[in-house]
Amino acid sequence: MPTDTAAVRDYLIGLQARLTTTLAALDGRATFASDAWQRPGGGGGDSRVLKDGALFEQAGVGFSHVMGQGLPPSATQARPELAGAEFEALGVSMVLHPTSPYVPTTHLNVRFFRAAKGASDAWWFGGGFDLTPYYPFDEDVRHWHRVARAACAPFGADVYPRYKEWCDRYFFLKHRDETRGVGGLFFDDLNAWGFARSFEFLRAVGDAFLSAYVPIVERRRAQAYGEREREFQLYRRGRYVEFNLVYDRGTTFGLQSGGRTESILMSLPPRVRFEYDWHPAPGSPEARLYSDYLRPRDWLGEAGE
Amino acid sequence: MPTDTAAVRDYLIGLQARLTTTLAALDGRATFASDAWQRPGGGGGDSRVLKDGALFEQAGVGFSHVMGQGLPPSATQARPELAGAEFEALGVSMVLHPTSPYVPTTHLNVRFFRAAKGASDAWWFGGGFDLTPYYPFDEDVRHWHRVARAACAPFGADVYPRYKEWCDRYFFLKHRDETRGVGGLFFDDLNAWGFARSFEFLRAVGDAFLSAYVPIVERRRAQAYGEREREFQLYRRGRYVEFNLVYDRGTTFGLQSGGRTESILMSLPPRVRFEYDWHPAPGSPEARLYSDYLRPRDWLGEAGE
Repeated sequence: MPTDTAAVRDYLIGLQARLTTTLAALDGRATFASDAWQRPGGGGGDSRVLKDGALFEQAGVGFSHVMGQGLPPSATQARPELAGAEFEALGVSMVLHPTSPYVPTTHLNVRFFRAAKGASDAWWFGGGFDLTPYYPFDEDVRHWHRVARAACAPFGADVYPRYKEWCDRYFFLKHRDETRGVGGLFFDDLNAWGFARSFEFLRAVGDAFLSAYVPIVERRRAQAYGEREREFQLYRRGRYVEFNLVYDRGTTFGLQSGGRTESILMSLPPRVRFEYDWHPAPGSPEARLYSDYLRPRDWLGEAGE
Repeated sequence: MPTDTAAVRDYLIGLQARLTTTLAALDGRATFASDAWQRPGGGGGDSRVLKDGALFEQAGVGFSHVMGQGLPPSATQARPELAGAEFEALGVSMVLHPTSPYVPTTHLNVRFFRAAKGASDAWWFGGGFDLTPYYPFDEDVRHWHRVARAACAPFGADVYPRYKEWCDRYFFLKHRDETRGVGGLFFDDLNAWGFARSFEFLRAVGDAFLSAYVPIVERRRAQAYGEREREFQLYRRGRYVEFNLVYDRGTTFGLQSGGRTESILMSLPPRVRFEYDWHPAPGSPEARLYSDYLRPRDWLGEAGE
């Protein structure tokens, strides 16, 4: 089956440019610094980071295209026969950490893998986006999932529920019995639709992100907050760190494959708080995050939307 | 070979009491809150945490004694035949996070394992202590290692170099090419000396800790510092988080074995900073930490002490 790495690469580079341009405009104060890097084992990337903005405390949008021998086990859980294969991986990975506790943290990833070993030659797409609010609003979460569903709709009515459920399952902290946030889409090992159609789906996901996220930012960015909300945000960012370092396959793949540490860990929040055995006061807005949002929910079906 | 779990348990409970009493007195303001917990799978523990002290931003000293079926793989890397065995684990684990960047972070662990599977019955001790300074002083590091060496001396002249080297190797962040700090002692799988002598060594290590750490605290606690030093400390604490969540076997064992999350993660620093691609200014005290301390060094041999 013919694949077209150059077309994927072009799309990803264009997506990174569109994201950074729009996000910098949205921020209104800070800009992205670009950091091109080479990987000793083969390939490289371009990490773009905005710091201390009016909206974003930190925003990182990375492009990478790496290749080498010896595909690490974290990349081949579904295909153990390819462990150690010659591989090529391209992706855009983004994490946005707003300063305001009322603006959700978010993550987007779109990626393409090729691996070859002996007679086996495989390729697949993966990616998705997910939202991690601190003080969530139902209308925001429904909007987020509505955009996700619309992006999936042309590919079949079963696509959104399947990848929404996968997202809930993937971004789950077992040791906390909590989802990371309110989910979105997650997919991996996608090749069953053939290259052209699978690539089309990747673009649909990548292209949908801004229309999912920007309206939420616009609605919440002006909301006043105090030390209480900020401290809660810093505390909950600890869960983001726990997830990324303990569970996230992109992170473990990156560290295992000799990836560029600074680019891999630019997903980590700029400031974080950990506190032993902290619990929200019953009935508080903070308690509502735990009880109403940090578990899988059907955001669109219930309301019959 | 006869083992005596009750004696180990008594020692560990006594050690926890001595540590918390001395550390609270050293702090002078805050006290330890005690949190007894039960583990659904069997056993339990007592987590003691001091917060917002005059000296310690957070100090955690945990005792646990857990048992169950199905020893997790992280505990049996040296003994794959025991994966899934019936097991019992006892330990004291401590991490101290001082507020002042001039007072080092430190970690102590002493533990005892028993595992039985079919005809196999095994036990072993493990533990050690290590120091993580932000602005190190050579005399402090030499004192630290001198106490470590003295604790090991009755057990053979080769013991300190061996466990010092193991510590350097264990507390190493591969993705940063840095040691976590200036090391100390680390040992595991210790049973070759027989139960009585191995247990004696465990006690020697546990009992040596305060005489290794307290003099360093006394020398550095009054040193004035500003935002620059504090921000560097918060940044370097990020490495502590990275190590504990990515590499530490105690943490992964705890999370895998359904351990009590809050007790396992009380090792994490109360406040942390991550920053993309930060580097110390050449020639600065911060740069000296990287160049002179975050790599294995022979702290005692060179000076012929």
